[in-house]
Amino acid sequence: MGEALSAAWMERVFESTKNWGRWGERDERGALNFITPERRAAAAALVRDGVAVSCARDLPVTASAENPQPALHHMLVAGDDVEALGIPGLGATMDFIGVAFHGMATSHIDALCHVAVGGRIYNGFPVTDVRSTGARRDSIMVAADGIVGRGVLLDVPRLRGVEWLEPGERIEPEELERAEATQRVRAGEGDVLLVATGRDARRAAKGPWDPNGVGLAGLDPRCIPWLHERRIAVLGGDGVSDALPGAGIAGWPIPVHQCCLVGMGVHLLDNLALAELARACAERGRSEFLLAVAPLRVPGGTGSPVNPIALF
Amino acid sequence: MGEALSAAWMERVFESTKNWGRWGERDERGALNFITPERRAAAAALVRDGVAVSCARDLPVTASAENPQPALHHMLVAGDDVEALGIPGLGATMDFIGVAFHGMATSHIDALCHVAVGGRIYNGFPVTDVRSTGARRDSIMVAADGIVGRGVLLDVPRLRGVEWLEPGERIEPEELERAEATQRVRAGEGDVLLVATGRDARRAAKGPWDPNGVGLAGLDPRCIPWLHERRIAVLGGDGVSDALPGAGIAGWPIPVHQCCLVGMGVHLLDNLALAELARACAERGRSEFLLAVAPLRVPGGTGSPVNPIALF
Amino acid sequence: MGEALSAAWMERVFESTKNWGRWGERDERGALNFITPERRAAAAALVRDGVAVSCARDLPVTASAENPQPALHHMLVAGDDVEALGIPGLGATMDFIGVAFHGMATSHIDALCHVAVGGRIYNGFPVTDVRSTGARRDSIMVAADGIVGRGVLLDVPRLRGVEWLEPGERIEPEELERAEATQRVRAGEGDVLLVATGRDARRAAKGPWDPNGVGLAGLDPRCIPWLHERRIAVLGGDGVSDALPGAGIAGWPIPVHQCCLVGMGVHLLDNLALAELARACAERGRSEFLLAVAPLRVPGGTGSPVNPIALF
Amino acid sequence: MGEALSAAWMERVFESTKNWGRWGERDERGALNFITPERRAAAAALVRDGVAVSCARDLPVTASAENPQPALHHMLVAGDDVEALGIPGLGATMDFIGVAFHGMATSHIDALCHVAVGGRIYNGFPVTDVRSTGARRDSIMVAADGIVGRGVLLDVPRLRGVEWLEPGERIEPEELERAEATQRVRAGEGDVLLVATGRDARRAAKGPWDPNGVGLAGLDPRCIPWLHERRIAVLGGDGVSDALPGAGIAGWPIPVHQCCLVGMGVHLLDNLALAELARACAERGRSEFLLAVAPLRVPGGTGSPVNPIALF
Repeated sequence: MGEALSAAWMERVFESTKNWGRWGERDERGALNFITPERRAAAAALVRDGVAVSCARDLPVTASAENPQPALHHMLVAGDDVEALGIPGLGATMDFIGVAFHGMATSHIDALCHVAVGGRIYNGFPVTDVRSTGARRDSIMVAADGIVGRGVLLDVPRLRGVEWLEPGERIEPEELERAEATQRVRAGEGDVLLVATGRDARRAAKGPWDPNGVGLAGLDPRCIPWLHERRIAVLGGDGVSDALPGAGIAGWPIPVHQCCLVGMGVHLLDNLALAELARACAERGRSEFLLAVAPLRVPGGTGSPVNPIALF
Repeated sequence: MGEALSAAWMERVFESTKNWGRWGERDERGALNFITPERRAAAAALVRDGVAVSCARDLPVTASAENPQPALHHMLVAGDDVEALGIPGLGATMDFIGVAFHGMATSHIDALCHVAVGGRIYNGFPVTDVRSTGARRDSIMVAADGIVGRGVLLDVPRLRGVEWLEPGERIEPEELERAEATQRVRAGEGDVLLVATGRDARRAAKGPWDPNGVGLAGLDPRCIPWLHERRIAVLGGDGVSDALPGAGIAGWPIPVHQCCLVGMGVHLLDNLALAELARACAERGRSEFLLAVAPLRVPGGTGSPVNPIALF
Repeated sequence: MGEALSAAWMERVFESTKNWGRWGERDERGALNFITPERRAAAAALVRDGVAVSCARDLPVTASAENPQPALHHMLVAGDDVEALGIPGLGATMDFIGVAFHGMATSHIDALCHVAVGGRIYNGFPVTDVRSTGARRDSIMVAADGIVGRGVLLDVPRLRGVEWLEPGERIEPEELERAEATQRVRAGEGDVLLVATGRDARRAAKGPWDPNGVGLAGLDPRCIPWLHERRIAVLGGDGVSDALPGAGIAGWPIPVHQCCLVGMGVHLLDNLALAELARACAERGRSEFLLAVAPLRVPGGTGSPVNPIALF
Repeated sequence: MGEALSAAWMERVFESTKNWGRWGERDERGALNFITPERRAAAAALVRDGVAVSCARDLPVTASAENPQPALHHMLVAGDDVEALGIPGLGATMDFIGVAFHGMATSHIDALCHVAVGGRIYNGFPVTDVRSTGARRDSIMVAADGIVGRGVLLDVPRLRGVEWLEPGERIEPEELERAEATQRVRAGEGDVLLVATGRDARRAAKGPWDPNGVGLAGLDPRCIPWLHERRIAVLGGDGVSDALPGAGIAGWPIPVHQCCLVGMGVHLLDNLALAELARACAERGRSEFLLAVAPLRVPGGTGSPVNPIALF
């Protein structure tokens, strides 16, 4: 921690953790390449009691301080007109959902094309390949067969003995390692690493707040080389992995997003619900599980709302 | 097959296969109750080589004969204006998806409230509990923790030695049993049963067609008692499980939907992509796998688009 | 003002100003019946200098304190992919708009089916005729040929010599009459009456605020009999005509909406932009003009976003 | 008609009818500049009997051969849950509308930024100014105060003594002049010219058809210099003004759109409903009227759905 978090430092980190070309010049999967069939099989072998836990929040259909763009849930036919289809005997109800899933409230996955640094997306493709008609590179379709592998939860509030981290607090890599030690788990190659900050507990206690104004707990930029070294495949959290406000490095407002998505090719899971998962881990005294993330198959999409399921 | 497919017969089938009250008067989970943690764990134990296969079609964003209500995929910020958020250094692209997912093209799950018979939904709740503001009973939220269990694929085209079944063809229970025998698998309590009819292959060869006009291959109503007896938890297919046009029974236009969703409490997976899954099964000489279905958490929803992932 | 604003008083007002049956038992047009062709022609004769002024705000696509449900404006094809249609030589850009137009930010018209009192909408139809699949009675389609007639603006801030009325302030009928006297105009049969409260000026000065929390200036319920007596056809304002919070009459949270839409059959124009119109009136020393309101033709709709145009 | 419809001819027409710079280098209003206040006042003076006629079709919410992208009309709260807002005494119903209004079924106005020729939009701005986040030039906001002026209807089926023109038929300028002579009207500077082809009558008789496949009647490209000479302000029709399929000129698939929007700066009104208007004109023996078009105020929009109202 002796080194200051300068822009020069961030640029060195970005360059030194960059996986461009690592899996070929045309690769669009990035660190998903770390999740081999063998690792998936090994993750499935972790399942013991068969309990399934959702890591997603409910679709946020009402506006709140954290959610200026509520999702749309519109009933198309309800029980008041159940024979609207006009087929004798057939009663059917139907609905529509619509969501601008990026932001601070919907549980979602970021595709690698979601963020650009210096006009480039993962593997060096120009961000102009992300057209108004859809992304031609690094879209969510690289995860069309789902992301299934070993999930590891690091529960920082539990480590600290608090209910939640305050908005803006930053977690350093040493703390992640202490959590690993306490929880007797080690995040490694091909893992989906989830880091809990207690956001759900704070919201339950204090109501929703504006992450852009008030902030969110998250990872210190010093975690970036650590994530790279560990070769994790996907990173997720109950916030947005980045701490907000950030470390104040000019040009690097959300360095974890910038380095993970653009440099390393690490997909991100944002706004997860981790309270139940944390409980499930604590009860069992284990912090690894089979995790299945199944993005919708959106050609050209910059991500997808998801409901990741952990299986113990 | 000695008994004619009359309305009286259908009513007897509906009544005799009805699970109302089976899991309590207030139950909204229906046959999902068959998926116990033990069965989930046993399903995970099926995983060997760790290969993951998606069972979903791409989100259908263009109109076609089978899809009069294309899904919306709208880019909100593309690479041409990547700094639109106005945060120095931050390039971000974003999109919106919207979908009326019921219908004949989107891979989706039907919640139990999606269909009513005689003004009632599963477990006897009045369909008027499905309000214009959302379903108060039998919504997709009962599957909020995902549906994870043993998947079984029965591949009828393979059994028949054809590429696909023609629209309107109906599969009888005896044929399902022949498929089981050939594939050396038996659908049983708590399974997610998927039945392939080769719809993808036919579309690839002949282009999309209108299922309401031209029809879809599916299950004969005689399969309903068989499904009940086997205690399957969830039924899915590359069509909509029902054959279209139906068997012509007055008041029972889609008897599989009507009996599964309303009577038995069996959730349905419609419009899946099963060609790749069928290939994966055939190659391995096995037809069972771990299946993870993760509906979006839509409070009051009548279902969800999904991307079910099979793990071998 | 001697009489207290009790629920009993409101009920008497509702009953005594009710136009149910006035234009026949099946009428769905309500006070639009006051706008005869002769009145339209007379309104057109008011036009002198040919200057047109919009009375609408921009479609509110960003969230704000007054707008928890931003409208959607999505570019479908932008200039970065202008040949996406694949027709040689053809460059085209396209967009999508979507809006839940009721609320506190979009300039819109309320159809008569938008509000119910005691389970009834205008002319006594049951509100259950407004189905999840669309309104079968009192929909916006009664205004499909537009609302064109004499517009009259009463400018209360000008009368008071202030820039704006404070949220919650209520305008009494005597004040409307003083405004008439000062502006030398008299609102009468078949007119579209617009009442300015200076909301735009206050927003420009202080930023947007939450009308549900902070309030909005509007008409005192005592104006209701006055509106009835004057036989106005349509009422509009820069707020929502009702003062918020209301007068605190139990069961009558928005009495102007309740009496106008349900009882009198008077359509309402909400959230207009009246600053420019007020200026145009003041400059000319006249407060009447031809007004054209052209709702979108939405079968079964409860209203429409509109851009009313005043012509001087 | 001696000159062949070659690409070279079209280029000459485009260049010779181009109004770039005519109203200044920064102008974005184009031929709307022809509609002066004086002309608006003169148009208002045309009003005699005060009858108003809508020129719009109903919002097309169901898919059809002409409409692969149905508009969305979603009830948010219907009469089955009318107290959903939770305010005692307040019953309210609400809905949402969404529409990708360009295309062949929604009555709409094209902003000048909707089409590009050679990478340029009206007045020479680069089409890349139309961003994924909205148009920065030539958006529909130039018509924010509405388009109010003299409307002129030329009724070609009436001239020909037929109910409708067949898809693909092209109207030449001589025929427009014959219609003028017969109808005793002359389209001139600042007019909104509407040309009827009987599309509504054909649809009523034969059902909807696919304009891209089957075609649409419209103006021959030879009309373009005529439109320019007449200095019309806006052009509209019951089709899309262009005949489909076009005249087969390489690079000019929809020359009327290309020359009007890009070159001349003439806004277009597409997919109008003109049957009722034609009847109103025929009955009165006059073909001019006050026309009010009120686009929604969509900042950065490429157009708007509209309901133009004619006043006689």
